Amino acid sequence: MKSFEELSGEFAGRFDKAHFPARPASLYDPAAYFLGLGGKRIRPVLCLMGNELFAEIEADAWELATAIELFHNFTLIHDDIMDKAPLRRGKQTVHEKYGASTALLAGDVMLVEAYDTINRMGSDPRSILRLFSATARAVCEGQQIDMDFEKKEGVALDEYLTMIELKTSVLLAASLQMGSILGGAGLGNQQHLYEFGRLLGLAFQIQDDYLDAYGDPAKFGKQVGGDIVAGKKTFLLIRALEEATAEQHKRIRELERAADPAVKIAGMLELFKACGVDAWARELKEKYMLTAYQHLEDIAVLSKRKEPLKQLAGFLVQREY
Amino acid sequence: MKSFEELSGEFAGRFDKAHFPARPASLYDPAAYFLGLGGKRIRPVLCLMGNELFAEIEADAWELATAIELFHNFTLIHDDIMDKAPLRRGKQTVHEKYGASTALLAGDVMLVEAYDTINRMGSDPRSILRLFSATARAVCEGQQIDMDFEKKEGVALDEYLTMIELKTSVLLAASLQMGSILGGAGLGNQQHLYEFGRLLGLAFQIQDDYLDAYGDPAKFGKQVGGDIVAGKKTFLLIRALEEATAEQHKRIRELERAADPAVKIAGMLELFKACGVDAWARELKEKYMLTAYQHLEDIAVLSKRKEPLKQLAGFLVQREY
Repeated sequence: MKSFEELSGEFAGRFDKAHFPARPASLYDPAAYFLGLGGKRIRPVLCLMGNELFAEIEADAWELATAIELFHNFTLIHDDIMDKAPLRRGKQTVHEKYGASTALLAGDVMLVEAYDTINRMGSDPRSILRLFSATARAVCEGQQIDMDFEKKEGVALDEYLTMIELKTSVLLAASLQMGSILGGAGLGNQQHLYEFGRLLGLAFQIQDDYLDAYGDPAKFGKQVGGDIVAGKKTFLLIRALEEATAEQHKRIRELERAADPAVKIAGMLELFKACGVDAWARELKEKYMLTAYQHLEDIAVLSKRKEPLKQLAGFLVQREY
Repeated sequence: MKSFEELSGEFAGRFDKAHFPARPASLYDPAAYFLGLGGKRIRPVLCLMGNELFAEIEADAWELATAIELFHNFTLIHDDIMDKAPLRRGKQTVHEKYGASTALLAGDVMLVEAYDTINRMGSDPRSILRLFSATARAVCEGQQIDMDFEKKEGVALDEYLTMIELKTSVLLAASLQMGSILGGAGLGNQQHLYEFGRLLGLAFQIQDDYLDAYGDPAKFGKQVGGDIVAGKKTFLLIRALEEATAEQHKRIRELERAADPAVKIAGMLELFKACGVDAWARELKEKYMLTAYQHLEDIAVLSKRKEPLKQLAGFLVQREY
């Protein structure tokens, strides 16, 4: 059984190759540039771990992990266009460096390459493709709902959960399940693994939202309070709006209009505290992880095979960066 | 054997259904809106004809034809974003009506649906998927090269041909070939059919460019001279630039800067005539079609099975709209 670090390193080594032809360079250089920006490669590792839970990691699992990482990068390139994000991993985004049209096409061709990579597996790709397409559809839906939220007053917690599930959780869950399908897992085991991934995804996003507000600036790597300044809906803000008194509501509206980012951040953090949002978030994350671990428990393989997944899950929901 | 009109009508009837779930409506209404704008459905009919050349049209061929039309619409939605086109088939484009981000996602989810539709066929989809992905990649490359041309001085005819082949021909050719694969065609027959489609595509584009300059406004449906006003590279302009004397070159540069569209159109048409571009285009189209028909001839099936394809090809390269 390999650890996250081992699998991540081995995957990175294999992934670091030309995924596209040389020409036209005006299309493929931008695509290769983005893949070269790196990342934690969490999703392909989940695929590999889902595979290793049931079998020795096989050649097809590496192909599938590659396809999943290509797909994830496709979504990032297109999300960056929609979010008008200037930076990704501290470097220029594709649309910023090469223009929006090229970024759009580079994303498209990356999605095509993801499908083609799955189709290059030695084994029959049909059940994998079915899950892959359902996942891709969910991710698109999640992104659309996230954009809808920007214009929407009063997003309820369950709506936010649905969005996060579609936009983030489903791909983590499906990465695990697809790996397990290749490993020959039965349907019951597949479903437990999927649920583990889905709940892990929700806890992962809570940690993401939590770090934005409460992260250690020295470790976090990003500006703490970025979501607050951007007025982004997060677990914390949505909970605060649900818990706030009329007076606290008024204060939140005031802070939303505050011009000074430092005032905005300090004020919102104070309010989060007053509404007990920080403790609530930690508890909700715990709750999800308990249920997630229960599903992992219920998978019918030797418990030592589950160790790498447990460790990775622990890292993902407790990470400080 | 069914005619283009029969197949097109039957396909339209089958295609006119919900391809997406109801929710989120903010994503799927835009996608459905675009599919509802109609179109000649040429590519799915080519797939069906490629199939019927070798066999009775089977259920899988209808699925595949649907996937091809979904794919084609995905490219149109994304092309319209890149071209900032306000209208498509006389109606608002998706990005114009719903915003660029939603149009981007609606295109993405349509590409996913195309793949999923292929994967829902009863038969093993692998060889189809391989050709489909190669085609999708080519179309992206063609679109990128087309965009590169906007900024490029002096596009040579062979560069323009490569671009048209990638952006237009390959999908027509592959639609035929994919249908024939389902029909059990041998590799030699597949290749002849692909070549027929590829050459037909080039002739089709010549006719497109020709109609823009020489179409009958009453039949054409679009503003005659639209490409000239937009300064678009076409078969005609590229040939004119290759044939023009130094003085004619100067005149072309002058006309490119002309403010009045009517002056621009009349002047360029005069120049095209002086350079013999109209006769050249008709001859080049004839040349491609002769070779195309030779490939159709060489396909080893009874010649009466080829009649619908011959008729459709004749229509596509002689159409006046």
